[in-house]
This record gives sequence, structure tokens and C-alpha cells, in this order.
Amino acid sequence: MVPSDIKACLFDVFGTVADWRTSVSRDLQEFARHMGIEGVDWLEFAVEWRKLYQPSMDEVRSGRRAFTILDVLHRESLVKLLGRYRIAGLSEADVDHMNRAWHRLDPWPDVREGLGRLRRDHIIAPCSNGNIALMVNMAKHAGLPWDCILGAETARAYKPMPEAYLTSCRQLGLAPAQVMMVAAHNPDLKAAKAQGLATAFVARPLEHGPGQTTNLAPDWSCVDVAAADFVELADRLG
Amino acid sequence: MVPSDIKACLFDVFGTVADWRTSVSRDLQEFARHMGIEGVDWLEFAVEWRKLYQPSMDEVRSGRRAFTILDVLHRESLVKLLGRYRIAGLSEADVDHMNRAWHRLDPWPDVREGLGRLRRDHIIAPCSNGNIALMVNMAKHAGLPWDCILGAETARAYKPMPEAYLTSCRQLGLAPAQVMMVAAHNPDLKAAKAQGLATAFVARPLEHGPGQTTNLAPDWSCVDVAAADFVELADRLG
Repeated sequence: MVPSDIKACLFDVFGTVADWRTSVSRDLQEFARHMGIEGVDWLEFAVEWRKLYQPSMDEVRSGRRAFTILDVLHRESLVKLLGRYRIAGLSEADVDHMNRAWHRLDPWPDVREGLGRLRRDHIIAPCSNGNIALMVNMAKHAGLPWDCILGAETARAYKPMPEAYLTSCRQLGLAPAQVMMVAAHNPDLKAAKAQGLATAFVARPLEHGPGQTTNLAPDWSCVDVAAADFVELADRLG
Repeated sequence: MVPSDIKACLFDVFGTVADWRTSVSRDLQEFARHMGIEGVDWLEFAVEWRKLYQPSMDEVRSGRRAFTILDVLHRESLVKLLGRYRIAGLSEADVDHMNRAWHRLDPWPDVREGLGRLRRDHIIAPCSNGNIALMVNMAKHAGLPWDCILGAETARAYKPMPEAYLTSCRQLGLAPAQVMMVAAHNPDLKAAKAQGLATAFVARPLEHGPGQTTNLAPDWSCVDVAAADFVELADRLG
């Protein structure tokens, strides 16, 4: 059942709003062509980069490391991968440019229309582990009409830590039950539901390419609403 | 001279973007009519409320009080004023409604068009002492197309503390010289300039009503650009 009295929708971004796998690999491939770097499978590179994402945030989640924005974690992972792939001779500005591939992600085809419609009657904001500059630059690139940027940097906590969800609600001046978390990942929704937020699942069966086996269907133990895409979600929320 | 390479414009809000004096007094007057409260000069009340603004933030700036969002400071000032004006019998929800008059401010007539034009080639964000919920709700009410909400709550510092400006630039991933602070108040621009930001002065000669004597002209010791309104500013920045 669609929860009533939802005032704001918070969105997971990597995978849910944006097709990071296609976007990052294409961006790196263009850069490599421009630089004359050959012999690298950039789709594989993008996937390997993403594999370092959760471990890098775990350092912060565990308290072993002070809060550090994702641009910095992404860059550290990138430098590791460049070593592993024996890609040398890049300037600091080159590495910065590659790192900002995450600022140039393309949205899934339904996102702009769906967000535009949801925005009429709701506050819409990312609640992503991406930092503010990453989210703002992606929004400019992709035409995403966010009302504000929330998430890890404003909450100073990485999802799925409770503070990431609770601080975002508090910063909007809303109770968790007035806020709906939208994600293509059941674990994100489970963590949001545990803090009292409403939840919506939107499947992104191509996030990991053809043959994806995870997050193909909602986990109804933590999901209030499932929609095929953001446009259907807008219809469901009225 | 207009500084080159400006990537983002940060805006003071109370007075620069929004006509708080007219908006707050009108909002309170409507509420008073609805509640049957008589004999109060609501224009005077709004001005008295605003007089408590700087002293309330000084408690935080001085370190005597932990960072506290403006909604809370505004509400404490409101409760004081209600006592002084001997307005009694209001519920907590009534006081909350009055406090949210600051979430329902109207913009000056040039603001929507000017921001819409500036947004095409620049990141635009408030850098206000207002908290996130206040800024988001005002933007929804007034149709302000911010790219993100920055300011006191995200920086955890009240202007004119250096951190309010520097943290906002850092959160955008920009150097201060790539960011322009826009305000109708020379002291705000002086503080921003001291941290290396570019500055634009837009006069709001009616902020304090007819007979205003302050901030009628730019202080050229700290102002890079002066424009009659936001539309002219958009023209100047190209």
C-alpha cells in the first residue's frame, strides 16, 4: 500500500538514478582514446573500481577513519587500480579528470520525467553516498531537478548507517514516516525502513549488465511500494 | 570589473533574495486575523523579531552555544516576543506555524528570472544563515531553482564566520576565486572577499522599508560587481 502523507522522496543515486557502469566505462574509454592508452577493458575497469567502493567506505563506517568525502575515496581507489593495470604517465589533472567520470553519469531514461513529476508535490533530494559536488555536477550534467542535495556529506555518515537516513529527515524538518527512500537495492531500503522511513523499490535489472542476479525484485519485508520506473512511481504517489 | 572563471554564485537570502519584512508581517497578520488576535502592529513585530536575529546567532558564533539551526533560534526569539506583546493562548502548533512564516517568504520581483538565467551557466545556491528545511520550503513556495542548499547548516557556522564561506566553496569542490557571493549587505561581501571569494552587490533599498539608510550603495573596497537586480547580474556574468 502506498503510505499517505509523504512529503519528501530521497533517492539512492548510483544504480537507482544513474547508470554508473555504462557511463563510467564510456567516459574512461573516451579519455583513453584521447590519451592514446590502449589494451584496457574499460567496462571491466569500471566494475573493478566499483568493487573498491564499499571497502573504502567501511573504513569510515567503522570509525577507523574520520569522515572523508567520496571524491577522495574514489580517487584513492582509482590510483590503486591505475597501478594494478600498469597505466602510468598521467598527470594529477588527468587523474582528477578520470575521477570526475562519477560527476558525469547519465540517468536511466525515465528519471528526468519521473523526477519532474514527483517534484510538483514532493521535496526531492538524493540521499547518496556521493558528496555534494559530485551530486551537483551530475545534476547539471544530467538535468536532474533536485530541491536540495542531502546524503553522506551533509549527514557525515555513509549509508546504511542510521544517521545517513535520520539526519536527512531531520534536515528537512520531517519525521521519518513523512519521507520515502527510493532505491534499486533492497539492503538500502531495509536500513531506511529500520529507521521508520517509507520505502519504494524501483528495479534496475541492467545496473550490472545483462545476467544480473541481484535486486531483481522487491524484498516485501522492507518495501512499501514497488514501481517499474520513476514515472510509475510518480503515478503511484499521486 | 567582472571576475572571469566564476563557476558558482552563492546568495544571501534574507533581504537579498527575499523581502522578509513585507512577507513575515503579512503572514503574521493573516494568522492573527484567522485567530482573532487584535491590536498588534505586525510590521513592527516582524522588525522586532528580526532585531533578535543577530544576537541569537552571536551565542553560536562565540562558542557559548553548540551549533543550533535558525528555525530553533527564530522560535526562541518568537516566544520572547509573544511574551513581550502579551499574546497568550497559542498552541505549540500555532507557534510553529508562526515560526514558519520565514519558510514562506516572497522573492523580490527580479529573482526568479535572474536565477533562472544565472543557473544556465553557473551553479546557484543560497549561502544563508537559514537552515536547510527553511531554504527548501521557501524555494518550493517561491519557485527558486537552486542547484543545492548551502549555508549555515551545511557549514555548521553562521556568516560572517570564515567557515561559512570556505566550507561552502569546498563542498562545491571549487576554489574561493571561482565562487561569487551575491548580497545586498556590504558586511557580508566584506567577509566573503576576505576569504578570497568574488563579490556582487545588488541593492535592495526597500528591505527595511521606505527611508532605509544602510546598504544603499556598494562598498567598492570589497565589491567586484554591482548590479541593479539579479537580471542585470545575469547579463553581467554573461
